Amino acid sequence: MKVGVLGAKGRVGSAVVAGVKAAEDLELVAEIDHGDSLDALVETGTEVIVDFTTPNAVMDNLEYCISHGIHCVVGTTGFDDERYEQVRRWCAESDGVGVLIAPNFAISAVLTMAFAKQAAPFFESAEVVEYHHPNKLDAPSGTAIKTAQGIAGARREAGLDPMPDATEQSLDGARGANVDGVHVHAVRMTGMVAHEEVIFGTQDQSLTIRQDSYGRDSFVPGVLTGVRQVADYPGLTIGLDKYLGL
Amino acid sequence: MKVGVLGAKGRVGSAVVAGVKAAEDLELVAEIDHGDSLDALVETGTEVIVDFTTPNAVMDNLEYCISHGIHCVVGTTGFDDERYEQVRRWCAESDGVGVLIAPNFAISAVLTMAFAKQAAPFFESAEVVEYHHPNKLDAPSGTAIKTAQGIAGARREAGLDPMPDATEQSLDGARGANVDGVHVHAVRMTGMVAHEEVIFGTQDQSLTIRQDSYGRDSFVPGVLTGVRQVADYPGLTIGLDKYLGL
Amino acid sequence: MKVGVLGAKGRVGSAVVAGVKAAEDLELVAEIDHGDSLDALVETGTEVIVDFTTPNAVMDNLEYCISHGIHCVVGTTGFDDERYEQVRRWCAESDGVGVLIAPNFAISAVLTMAFAKQAAPFFESAEVVEYHHPNKLDAPSGTAIKTAQGIAGARREAGLDPMPDATEQSLDGARGANVDGVHVHAVRMTGMVAHEEVIFGTQDQSLTIRQDSYGRDSFVPGVLTGVRQVADYPGLTIGLDKYLGL
Amino acid sequence: MKVGVLGAKGRVGSAVVAGVKAAEDLELVAEIDHGDSLDALVETGTEVIVDFTTPNAVMDNLEYCISHGIHCVVGTTGFDDERYEQVRRWCAESDGVGVLIAPNFAISAVLTMAFAKQAAPFFESAEVVEYHHPNKLDAPSGTAIKTAQGIAGARREAGLDPMPDATEQSLDGARGANVDGVHVHAVRMTGMVAHEEVIFGTQDQSLTIRQDSYGRDSFVPGVLTGVRQVADYPGLTIGLDKYLGL
Repeated sequence: MKVGVLGAKGRVGSAVVAGVKAAEDLELVAEIDHGDSLDALVETGTEVIVDFTTPNAVMDNLEYCISHGIHCVVGTTGFDDERYEQVRRWCAESDGVGVLIAPNFAISAVLTMAFAKQAAPFFESAEVVEYHHPNKLDAPSGTAIKTAQGIAGARREAGLDPMPDATEQSLDGARGANVDGVHVHAVRMTGMVAHEEVIFGTQDQSLTIRQDSYGRDSFVPGVLTGVRQVADYPGLTIGLDKYLGL
Repeated sequence: MKVGVLGAKGRVGSAVVAGVKAAEDLELVAEIDHGDSLDALVETGTEVIVDFTTPNAVMDNLEYCISHGIHCVVGTTGFDDERYEQVRRWCAESDGVGVLIAPNFAISAVLTMAFAKQAAPFFESAEVVEYHHPNKLDAPSGTAIKTAQGIAGARREAGLDPMPDATEQSLDGARGANVDGVHVHAVRMTGMVAHEEVIFGTQDQSLTIRQDSYGRDSFVPGVLTGVRQVADYPGLTIGLDKYLGL
Repeated sequence: MKVGVLGAKGRVGSAVVAGVKAAEDLELVAEIDHGDSLDALVETGTEVIVDFTTPNAVMDNLEYCISHGIHCVVGTTGFDDERYEQVRRWCAESDGVGVLIAPNFAISAVLTMAFAKQAAPFFESAEVVEYHHPNKLDAPSGTAIKTAQGIAGARREAGLDPMPDATEQSLDGARGANVDGVHVHAVRMTGMVAHEEVIFGTQDQSLTIRQDSYGRDSFVPGVLTGVRQVADYPGLTIGLDKYLGL
Repeated sequence: MKVGVLGAKGRVGSAVVAGVKAAEDLELVAEIDHGDSLDALVETGTEVIVDFTTPNAVMDNLEYCISHGIHCVVGTTGFDDERYEQVRRWCAESDGVGVLIAPNFAISAVLTMAFAKQAAPFFESAEVVEYHHPNKLDAPSGTAIKTAQGIAGARREAGLDPMPDATEQSLDGARGANVDGVHVHAVRMTGMVAHEEVIFGTQDQSLTIRQDSYGRDSFVPGVLTGVRQVADYPGLTIGLDKYLGL
């Protein structure tokens, strides 16, 4: 499969370039960056592009690629309903082209969130503990909040009672942040990168789902999964979940 | 919902009795043990029975219950294809009756196996580590072997390459047992009960799914889940998976 | 070694009785409970007693045993400086008798606290996460608070800077309780018993010390360690640390 | 404190250079590499050098530094008893100079080994599980073998019985490698770096000591600890343990 990378000189794009080069079933045919002409994509017979550019550039890139029958895997941010609608219209005019736009390509994080939702209805208790390097500005992480909201939603749908908690005497903050009834704890630790642990408990047992990111390139396997499957999903797909069989 | 327990004085049955009593939405109306008449079930208006008896007793129990329109949740062992077929015939004659027969009611263990299969296609590496008390006779545990086989099957279906492993120099046994290409390690530790950890790895990240059993009654929540849902699944269902949305 | 248990019919005492019986190097010669005469100790040639009685009873027990040359391992609560001083006077009059009074006999918890203090000076970051069943009334646990205080003290002595933490935007409670500058997080989880995790981090690495209690009798091995060693430590010893080589 | 780095352009040396620069209490005054004159050390008033050079170069470096009253922190390999003896002689002639030669500067790994030895006498069971990237050639890791030997030695000294293990039926390798009676398991996992877990168990409890290396520069904090303390330990010290209060 012939792959082109847009934003190829950026930090994220260059990790994608390295990942495509290392994959035996993929061939890197085009590296495009700011100022380069997109026509190289057509000239090289590019079948799938990966776009990690900027909100300013991405819509033009997509219009060009979709209209030329090139599938698109997009990690660039800045999408809203209006932009999604525009992409859908372009896809409708270009039969069979697949476009994947995902906010998070870290497979282990996407699976953690999905499994947490699946498990939630069957456990009395659920809490989230996330661990990050101490330079992080927000606590808890956006991923941890989203995970907790997913658990809370699944519990509501299943009609579960509130979690048991007999705490009467507590130091301020000891029980963590309360996100829709799910307690979330944030640890900040020199040396760590990004880690999330979801713990579920019921009689005589617990289930723990833990995701560890050891480096900055944990998005690469998810991007390559997108590249390999995007042709099988014509039209617009938002989020990696469907590609992961979730 | 009116519940009867068969095998109510056995160790497992008495834990089920306690679990039903403690559940606000369930009413325990009959406790049957060896030698008691099953007619008490009809007389008390039992809607669902739980059977943890013996291979010798369970088929008579099921015939009685199914023919009297009572749903059945069964943890008794000794079922084979012939027995399953017989239960299906009884169900066919008794419209709407649900029968759940499951070899494992520990929800956290069932979810761990299911999540492991779902995650397997997306990671280069996968290994299983299980931890048990030192009185256990077999290593690895049956659950760990089954988990490894599930991972191996999912990898085969997805067409994955063998896992990377550059080991050249190894002490005997260091890399664990090889179950269909998945390495499985068994730890035996005084104080521990039953614990299983499945670890998946790919570029810059890992995903860990861990199940801990802290006591002997970890099957109770799964049995109660069965009791609550069995009326929604007419006919024979084997294994708890479908009830857990898997 | 001939052992007597005082408070032998209490929940804790009866676990000690079972522990002594199971130990091949110890012989249980006396089981004393409320109302029984202590003279049975002398008559049976008891060498060491274990006292899990009440604050009302324990001082009379100690006076009797020390004056009769019987070593004492004590888990009964209610000791203050005045009582310790009294025990020291009795010991001074009874040459060679050893008395161990310890607030915590759970070896894994005592070691966790000691190791945490030893490690603290060498890491930029340190946090504590504790996990308990949801019926616990206080959060964080007393042990977790004590652990955090030990870490804080060791950091102060070593002249460490405050831990790095760039958090600017935080949900209330996300970063846990602040105990002398050490963040402590309390998880409450059905199925869990009592677990504590101390995490240390510095450049490119972390060190985690974790203690798990799976059942209520985790004090037994510490009591037996006390019984085996008390004769080697004449006079009063407070806390199990010295016996553990700490 | 004025610090010079020898082997400053090597991978390890350049990480030390960065670490010294980032430390507020240390001043980097000399970066020496192959071919540079050592006189720069004296000219810049270097108080401590760090040597990550080669077995060929290190002895000349040490003779120069010790004879000029400069303390030495050495991670270079290739030392044997003869070399240690030579260093001791040089130190004897140069009153008050401290030399630290250590095979392992990863503080978390050194502490894990030390704590494992301390804990070993008090637990019935102990096993080691190590996790590394799949390009590692040996299994188990040298560190894991050394940890297991330390545990085995401490158990022998304490006169402990062999660990309980009722395994009768086992897949080949399931119970790991047997290192002096301690079972050691090696996991190989894409995405992971270097991680070691030591687990101890006794009645109703376990103690886990875990070390995680997330990157290649985990030796830096140990080297800086050496630099800060080497003046307090005149003569030759082998291994970081004493500096860590072990």
